[in-house]
Amino acid sequence: MTAAISSRLTDIRRRLHRFPEPAWREFRTTATLVEELRTIGVDELAVGSDAYDPDDRMAVPSESELAPWYSRAREAGVDEELLTRMDGGNTGVVAVLEQGAGPSIGLRVDIDGLFIEESTESGHHPQAEGFRSETGETMHSCGHDGHMTIGLGVLEAIKESDFSGTLTVFFQPAEEESGGGNPMAQSRFADGLDYLFAVHLGLDHPSGEVVAGIEKPLAMCHLTAEFIGTSAHAGKEPQQGDNAIQAMATAIQNIYGIPRHRDGMTRVNVGRADAGSASNVIAERAKIWGEVRGETTPLREYMKTEFERTLYAAAETHDCDVDFNIVSESPRADSDEELADIVYEVADGIESVDSPVRRAAFGASEDATFLMERVQEEGGLATYLIVGTDHPTSHHTPTFDIDERSLETGIDVLTDSILATADERV
Amino acid sequence: MTAAISSRLTDIRRRLHRFPEPAWREFRTTATLVEELRTIGVDELAVGSDAYDPDDRMAVPSESELAPWYSRAREAGVDEELLTRMDGGNTGVVAVLEQGAGPSIGLRVDIDGLFIEESTESGHHPQAEGFRSETGETMHSCGHDGHMTIGLGVLEAIKESDFSGTLTVFFQPAEEESGGGNPMAQSRFADGLDYLFAVHLGLDHPSGEVVAGIEKPLAMCHLTAEFIGTSAHAGKEPQQGDNAIQAMATAIQNIYGIPRHRDGMTRVNVGRADAGSASNVIAERAKIWGEVRGETTPLREYMKTEFERTLYAAAETHDCDVDFNIVSESPRADSDEELADIVYEVADGIESVDSPVRRAAFGASEDATFLMERVQEEGGLATYLIVGTDHPTSHHTPTFDIDERSLETGIDVLTDSILATADERV
Amino acid sequence: MTAAISSRLTDIRRRLHRFPEPAWREFRTTATLVEELRTIGVDELAVGSDAYDPDDRMAVPSESELAPWYSRAREAGVDEELLTRMDGGNTGVVAVLEQGAGPSIGLRVDIDGLFIEESTESGHHPQAEGFRSETGETMHSCGHDGHMTIGLGVLEAIKESDFSGTLTVFFQPAEEESGGGNPMAQSRFADGLDYLFAVHLGLDHPSGEVVAGIEKPLAMCHLTAEFIGTSAHAGKEPQQGDNAIQAMATAIQNIYGIPRHRDGMTRVNVGRADAGSASNVIAERAKIWGEVRGETTPLREYMKTEFERTLYAAAETHDCDVDFNIVSESPRADSDEELADIVYEVADGIESVDSPVRRAAFGASEDATFLMERVQEEGGLATYLIVGTDHPTSHHTPTFDIDERSLETGIDVLTDSILATADERV
Amino acid sequence: MTAAISSRLTDIRRRLHRFPEPAWREFRTTATLVEELRTIGVDELAVGSDAYDPDDRMAVPSESELAPWYSRAREAGVDEELLTRMDGGNTGVVAVLEQGAGPSIGLRVDIDGLFIEESTESGHHPQAEGFRSETGETMHSCGHDGHMTIGLGVLEAIKESDFSGTLTVFFQPAEEESGGGNPMAQSRFADGLDYLFAVHLGLDHPSGEVVAGIEKPLAMCHLTAEFIGTSAHAGKEPQQGDNAIQAMATAIQNIYGIPRHRDGMTRVNVGRADAGSASNVIAERAKIWGEVRGETTPLREYMKTEFERTLYAAAETHDCDVDFNIVSESPRADSDEELADIVYEVADGIESVDSPVRRAAFGASEDATFLMERVQEEGGLATYLIVGTDHPTSHHTPTFDIDERSLETGIDVLTDSILATADERV
Repeated sequence: MTAAISSRLTDIRRRLHRFPEPAWREFRTTATLVEELRTIGVDELAVGSDAYDPDDRMAVPSESELAPWYSRAREAGVDEELLTRMDGGNTGVVAVLEQGAGPSIGLRVDIDGLFIEESTESGHHPQAEGFRSETGETMHSCGHDGHMTIGLGVLEAIKESDFSGTLTVFFQPAEEESGGGNPMAQSRFADGLDYLFAVHLGLDHPSGEVVAGIEKPLAMCHLTAEFIGTSAHAGKEPQQGDNAIQAMATAIQNIYGIPRHRDGMTRVNVGRADAGSASNVIAERAKIWGEVRGETTPLREYMKTEFERTLYAAAETHDCDVDFNIVSESPRADSDEELADIVYEVADGIESVDSPVRRAAFGASEDATFLMERVQEEGGLATYLIVGTDHPTSHHTPTFDIDERSLETGIDVLTDSILATADERV
Repeated sequence: MTAAISSRLTDIRRRLHRFPEPAWREFRTTATLVEELRTIGVDELAVGSDAYDPDDRMAVPSESELAPWYSRAREAGVDEELLTRMDGGNTGVVAVLEQGAGPSIGLRVDIDGLFIEESTESGHHPQAEGFRSETGETMHSCGHDGHMTIGLGVLEAIKESDFSGTLTVFFQPAEEESGGGNPMAQSRFADGLDYLFAVHLGLDHPSGEVVAGIEKPLAMCHLTAEFIGTSAHAGKEPQQGDNAIQAMATAIQNIYGIPRHRDGMTRVNVGRADAGSASNVIAERAKIWGEVRGETTPLREYMKTEFERTLYAAAETHDCDVDFNIVSESPRADSDEELADIVYEVADGIESVDSPVRRAAFGASEDATFLMERVQEEGGLATYLIVGTDHPTSHHTPTFDIDERSLETGIDVLTDSILATADERV
Repeated sequence: MTAAISSRLTDIRRRLHRFPEPAWREFRTTATLVEELRTIGVDELAVGSDAYDPDDRMAVPSESELAPWYSRAREAGVDEELLTRMDGGNTGVVAVLEQGAGPSIGLRVDIDGLFIEESTESGHHPQAEGFRSETGETMHSCGHDGHMTIGLGVLEAIKESDFSGTLTVFFQPAEEESGGGNPMAQSRFADGLDYLFAVHLGLDHPSGEVVAGIEKPLAMCHLTAEFIGTSAHAGKEPQQGDNAIQAMATAIQNIYGIPRHRDGMTRVNVGRADAGSASNVIAERAKIWGEVRGETTPLREYMKTEFERTLYAAAETHDCDVDFNIVSESPRADSDEELADIVYEVADGIESVDSPVRRAAFGASEDATFLMERVQEEGGLATYLIVGTDHPTSHHTPTFDIDERSLETGIDVLTDSILATADERV
Repeated sequence: MTAAISSRLTDIRRRLHRFPEPAWREFRTTATLVEELRTIGVDELAVGSDAYDPDDRMAVPSESELAPWYSRAREAGVDEELLTRMDGGNTGVVAVLEQGAGPSIGLRVDIDGLFIEESTESGHHPQAEGFRSETGETMHSCGHDGHMTIGLGVLEAIKESDFSGTLTVFFQPAEEESGGGNPMAQSRFADGLDYLFAVHLGLDHPSGEVVAGIEKPLAMCHLTAEFIGTSAHAGKEPQQGDNAIQAMATAIQNIYGIPRHRDGMTRVNVGRADAGSASNVIAERAKIWGEVRGETTPLREYMKTEFERTLYAAAETHDCDVDFNIVSESPRADSDEELADIVYEVADGIESVDSPVRRAAFGASEDATFLMERVQEEGGLATYLIVGTDHPTSHHTPTFDIDERSLETGIDVLTDSILATADERV
């Protein structure tokens, strides 16, 4: 890869980094991708509802949550025709290269940011280099800006190669909410794929490492609960209220106390809460946003069942009702050994890769498992790979960053794996 | 009072009811009052920072909380010059009638609304009659729309009477946050008042009742606490987080468990909470808005001390820090018997008053106590009075409403009391 | 009163202090009283089931809780015949003096100790003087040793006086559990009483004060709850347990969070808990002992209802059942002014009384209210009085003690009040 | 094995089952073992402090907890000389067979029961057959009665075999408290062992299965905490108390909420609580018994650190102190493959074994790891094996039972493994 290309990759990544958008609100991000894809030149380019059925989406925000991001994208000059196609939060794009007879190969990258306020510390690289998030409230603190860059780079490299076959790149929205995996998996673009690659940067693997295949991605479920009580004047009639905030606190305390399980790892979190109106009013409403995970799908179901029971009982401690919703879910899916081994062999031959790794466990969840499961069900092979990158702090923290040199590594490994797959066709 | 006047009072009350504004954001409300006061014609009219020293305010919201209400007021056509005077949240107005030699009399009414979404039930009178709150999120559910109407009505009646002396009406912002009482009490308008009246509608007293003087208004304190932990990926590294939401839940559970006190009534509430960012991120921040009250000032101090200690310990249970703030406070102040007795005698002679009551206990707090305390310290007399009104549900609920006929009663009782005071000067 | 009498009173009090026995286990205490009453010589002396119907008792301990105290009493040499009469926990004694025509007067004193380990600090008077509790686990830390002494002293003084009428002294067990008031009130000895006196030492009133009549004794209720879950191996199968200890902790947290009430004082406590078996077994059972109180009987009922609901919901948070029991209850009953005024006048004339007080509020509960209510219902008059005594620390603490000089004061006030009542018969 | 032997094994097991004794109180159990060992005839027999240094013990109960079990053993006729040797809770016995030159082999079995009340359901086999626990409060619900029987059976079988070498059987007390593993591992009997076997019945493996070697026994730690507050009268002065029961509930709620860990399995439990004295006294003291476990020793340390921090913070929420103690700990130790493989081969050749298993994970903890670690450190080999047995319900439940036919299987597998080890000496 030339220095020019390398520099261009860095530019793209930083451009995307400056405007992180949350799940189903990646309006400006999608527009940027479309612009880059048109520059590259692809054979098919489907945006939003052209790419998938909007009804298959999960974790779609409300109109009022979508609106400000839609407005910002308009203010930033996003094309009206494109905006119209994304109306209602139908973000994301699928790009296809058709280069003759050969295998049908998929690559999936994710595109959404997180509601984390990026660090302003001078030692934080994006701050020092002037490409810190400009939104104030969101951040690419999970490397999706890098994933998109890799997706674009692979498309470009394959186009310039002598690859014979079809390459489909899924730029998937709403991974953080497990909301976009399902519509992509249900779409016509996922029909008949022979091979699927999904990629992630970092995850505690340093620059120079490439992990070929993952085991044990956690099955997961996002959920919300709203406690509904009765408001009252906290000074005059404290006994008249049914206190939704007390119900919420009781729920939170007990949700974290759901027992560990003999059969394996579980996870539980309440990551957001919004309750009540004023200090002197007993809260009528309290909403929480949570998630559960399990090393297997039954373990996730165990956690979900306990979570739900706890909610109802906690509501009852303060005579409240509760409105419980499952926002989205993703299954567990493991990597196919044959395909992972190809990645391993390829990685072993690439200079920037010091230490290829044959499989690693994966403590997180990923809705790439929807696409993996679909491909595997139809007889294809799927693998997840991790491209190591030095990251100063953990994913999902305000000072997360990637080593930009790993973008090239990612593109090289994926490009060569796609080429190898076409050659060695199983 | 003529039917025409009565009808006009109702109109004013309903106009104010449609645009309830929260503490220190009563921009449109203040403009409406100024308009009405100009119609009546008063001798002095001081708005915002002309009326008091902005530094004496408590519970002032942030710039970003003020901004949307300021914008709405501008969009509603509020005069730019007036808006400028209220810039930074300096709302409220003081109006003075100078009618020759005689006593200096103060009347205090409050003007702010609450963050309660008003009911849309067809049986709810403001809904049925088309004057329900148009803001979507706020409501006059404590009768302050009526208090303002009474304040205007008394000014008008006194102006038309042969009253000799000075009448100052304090249209005070931010009562619900105990934020506006102190600046009004410190202002030049509170200097040398001989008598002070403060009035409230309802409080479980039906139409036809008037309570002359109150005992035991609770001393109170509004406070906030922000728990600051460490965010982490809830799936990959749950052990890396310092969970601000768990700290918050622990605090809430234990705050409500602060022991009752031998010496009298106490109150405690956490009325609002806002925490975290996303279901899959361990929450870095969690903020609560609370209050404590006590039958005496030492009882409030007891509650405040326990509240604060609980916060710090709860933070420590999850290795978090806590940022604790006292937003505002108000003292206890009782009504002077001599002045309350005048109100009682007057009320007993008014036709619409079935049952005058000589004193009642008061379960709530009121920052009118700042003005009362100031007047009493300077040798004047102060009393609080309650004008009964049938209200279908409790104050601070979405279906609260008043019996509009009690507006006249309130105006009559206050006007006659002011006249009587001037006559019988102690 | 002579120095000899005074010295004897002190001896009796200290003897009783050394062997405090808990509710319905006052075997040795009753025997000591019987011995003293025989020395004095009374006209009727009814022990245990001769004094009341055992079925009217509340808060009766189990056989296994009674047994060790019964054994200790036997080992201490209590007469077998007396033990037989007290079998099953029928402790307490009623003594009657019949001295001719005249009013029928009742005096009620309580006799039980508390499960508090008495202080061994050298500055603690009973420790220093060698009459500290010898049981190891119980203590007279509420002054009942003094109450019994006063009861005996009054009987002796009345016997030696020219009083004409009938005096019945109720030495009532199980006051601390509100268990003995009801059977005494239902007994034949309570029939047709013209006047009833009930007495307490201390309660924060210093030596030299006598409070004639109380207001607002709290209505109260003792209750227990046992959470029943499923045990499991905490290491191997944590998910198999239904954790009764988690249910209990949830209940405790929320019980203390039952809202304060507009209408007046409430109280709530969980004073004892016993749960589970071993650190590595998920607890199958957890039991709590609690109480609620209210300034009025409806306020107690409010607390009881909330307490119960909280229990069931907390059990449900951990899929447990709950077994809820009301152990005992006592009503609120106020003192009759006429009778209290007689006490006031009498106290005012006694030298050791510096400051007679006309009525005081009473933050605690008392099952003397059963007898007071019975007498008042039948047309008699009842009053409660407090004989002040300097006490170094609060009632129910390990370093509580009384000023023994107040025993004489108590006897004098009661004796003279009884005589005065007979004279001034209403 | 003949029917006669089989019947005798069953008799021994049932005899032991009837008198389960908790940790360090296995006085009668030890006496029964001594009696059986004398019948068998061994070359050395060391009881209690002859077998180990009492100071190496962990989790030793207090004198008052030991006393009733010591008395019961005396009442049951245990020899006084033996009782003296066990004074202070020095229970357990080590038996040695010296049969000439050859390897030095250890076998460790555990002997203590649990504080679980055994089921009286008619379908519960020990109830139906009349050998249910006669202690009322304790039970062999983890199969230690079977382990002891196997230990005796192996000794007998080896004695009668042509085995050449030394066999030492450790009948270890206090396994449930992780208290007895350390003193056995530090004793002279553990010096220079070439091979060590430790055995457990069941653990969800059915009759016919034998698991040769375990992986991942959890490292564990037992701990206690006593919260120390201030008592007060719950009715009169609720604000005076520092409520140890509220502190305890806060601790329990948050201890179960200690975050899961990225690096592997953790466990936490509070299995017992004892707090306060009476419903109307604010609790001065509250004690909990808990445990933490981890898949690795660092994971246990993580849990221990979090547990401890939570305790101190929870105490502070109610202004209490806390007295924290580590009762006992055991490390993780894995089985050596070479030795486990011998067991596997042997098991595969035994008729009653349907399905030998080559290694299994182990969700529980075991202080056999002390002995395993010691042997491995000195260059010997150690393995843990599980002898499957049908058990109707989980270990540590009131209806746990074993399939007595598995006793023979256990003896056969261990005897043949010992013989094979001697032959094939590595």
